[in-house]
Amino acid sequence: MKRIGKRTLSFANPPRIFSYASVVGKKEHEGPLAAEFDLYTTDRFYGEETFEKAESKLQKTAMQTALKKARMTNEDVDHIFAGDLLNQCIGSSFGVREFGIPFIGLYGACSTMALSVGLACLFTDSGASRHAMAVTSSHFCSAERQYRFPLNYGCQRPPTSQWTVTGAGALIVGQGEIGACVPSVTFGEIQDLGIKDMNNMGAAMAPAAASTLLHFFEDTATGPEDYDLIFTGDLGSVGSQSLYILLDREGVDIRCRHSDCGLMIFDREKQDVHAGGSGCGCSAAVLCSYIMHRLEEKKLRNILFMSTGALMSPTSAFQGESIPGIAHLLQIKSD
Amino acid sequence: MKRIGKRTLSFANPPRIFSYASVVGKKEHEGPLAAEFDLYTTDRFYGEETFEKAESKLQKTAMQTALKKARMTNEDVDHIFAGDLLNQCIGSSFGVREFGIPFIGLYGACSTMALSVGLACLFTDSGASRHAMAVTSSHFCSAERQYRFPLNYGCQRPPTSQWTVTGAGALIVGQGEIGACVPSVTFGEIQDLGIKDMNNMGAAMAPAAASTLLHFFEDTATGPEDYDLIFTGDLGSVGSQSLYILLDREGVDIRCRHSDCGLMIFDREKQDVHAGGSGCGCSAAVLCSYIMHRLEEKKLRNILFMSTGALMSPTSAFQGESIPGIAHLLQIKSD
Repeated sequence: MKRIGKRTLSFANPPRIFSYASVVGKKEHEGPLAAEFDLYTTDRFYGEETFEKAESKLQKTAMQTALKKARMTNEDVDHIFAGDLLNQCIGSSFGVREFGIPFIGLYGACSTMALSVGLACLFTDSGASRHAMAVTSSHFCSAERQYRFPLNYGCQRPPTSQWTVTGAGALIVGQGEIGACVPSVTFGEIQDLGIKDMNNMGAAMAPAAASTLLHFFEDTATGPEDYDLIFTGDLGSVGSQSLYILLDREGVDIRCRHSDCGLMIFDREKQDVHAGGSGCGCSAAVLCSYIMHRLEEKKLRNILFMSTGALMSPTSAFQGESIPGIAHLLQIKSD
Repeated sequence: MKRIGKRTLSFANPPRIFSYASVVGKKEHEGPLAAEFDLYTTDRFYGEETFEKAESKLQKTAMQTALKKARMTNEDVDHIFAGDLLNQCIGSSFGVREFGIPFIGLYGACSTMALSVGLACLFTDSGASRHAMAVTSSHFCSAERQYRFPLNYGCQRPPTSQWTVTGAGALIVGQGEIGACVPSVTFGEIQDLGIKDMNNMGAAMAPAAASTLLHFFEDTATGPEDYDLIFTGDLGSVGSQSLYILLDREGVDIRCRHSDCGLMIFDREKQDVHAGGSGCGCSAAVLCSYIMHRLEEKKLRNILFMSTGALMSPTSAFQGESIPGIAHLLQIKSD
């Protein structure tokens, strides 16, 4: 592995994505990507007693499914990288508790999927792990009541608000010959342009997305035209427009090559999700289904996947703070 | 870097700790380690409006001080690894926001210091970073009101409870010739023996400490006698005793070579902290002061530093869940 430019890490023998799995909820399974997911549940409790326990089960099931698809056992995986949106990341702690695998807990809000996969790649490339697993989740009900209002309050939502995805995605990386590979990773820095509206996460995250993407293009001396598609995590409609405007200022136009996982997972015409989907589980579930499928089918051959996170909490918002954004980027290629 | 045994990562050219700094609060500065810390504040708000903002300032100040002591600027550091106990880790997000350095957010509860330093070492060893910074914090007031009761409620505390340290520690690692080095790192797995008492974190974390330490001894074919001291993060008096009992069962006795940062930072006779200090900032501040000073003075030459974390949240506790523990370990040597 070597650093190229200022920020980008490039792997001489790019780690491969051996296996992946996604599990989603009812609304996600009613959306345009229904056929792409491995598993779904129509029960928002997923057979558990609480929403938080249901979220842990989403992670656990995604990991078990990814292991099963790879015909691997827990013994084959040396490190798990996981995170989620819940206070003290209990979705992950309780999700990975029974696996008996060394656990590196992460917090990157909705940027966690790219963060965890990036770290997993670095671990396998350096020989720290033979195989490493990355997993993240979110759950509409656990997130909504934690960040905003009690669910049964029935609060009206402004048009810029997004709908937290109920879902999880897990994948396993390692050195080998099979599977899509990750030639490079760029970890992002925090950007904060002063957005304070907790119902407009897209606008808060767009500056971080622009920063990381511009760093990557500069480091690699490439541009949007070199990639089949650039996926963002959950900028939604407002954040995507903000990203275009910020990139325009630097003379970069990604409009015709951009897809946002938050806009792909729901049908905004029919599903009443306002500005689109969001949550750690949004980009995780779309990566571990639609995106990986298209790479396997060689319909996509060279993409950028950039999850974006809003690093505020209700407490920081109540204290008048603005919302720091962050974005981490992976380049993923099929051979 | 190579894996030795099942869990331990060993560096051929061990990363060095170039610089370190600690900042603590009033009570910590009245304790036995008062003379060791770089900075302290007697104002629990640290000149800010809220406890949470004060905690971010602790991190920020620790990082700035570590940079200054190393005569480095932000430009010299390629990645920051940071985490804390607050919901959505806002202590870190707002603490590192203005540094303009790629940020890897972590959540490992009180295990975060060993986790962040371990990852920073891996990044510099693999060439991903020229220099990497690790920082964590805790604040008695922000933690107490989030995890337990409003501060002015004046709740009585049971004897097993611990006192969250107000403080932060930051350090900078890289390849070089100067400073103590980190020859090996062991990332731990979650252990959960069913402890449910949120006022007895020590007992909940001890099984994880035992597991990680035994893995390290097995992987390296060493024992307690090979190290000058084994530091645990914040097991306190109850957790330390639990650790001894768990290790006894495996025929390992660390009693005469063990110190716990939570027992070192306060005077339990005079400072009314019950079972000892705790919090991410506890092991961070003690590592970045007392421990590093003794390594520099060669009074300690070869130690183990193991931070331990309790991965529950108030929500998981209210839902009847037990407390998952985790521990990560660093070996640190002076030449």
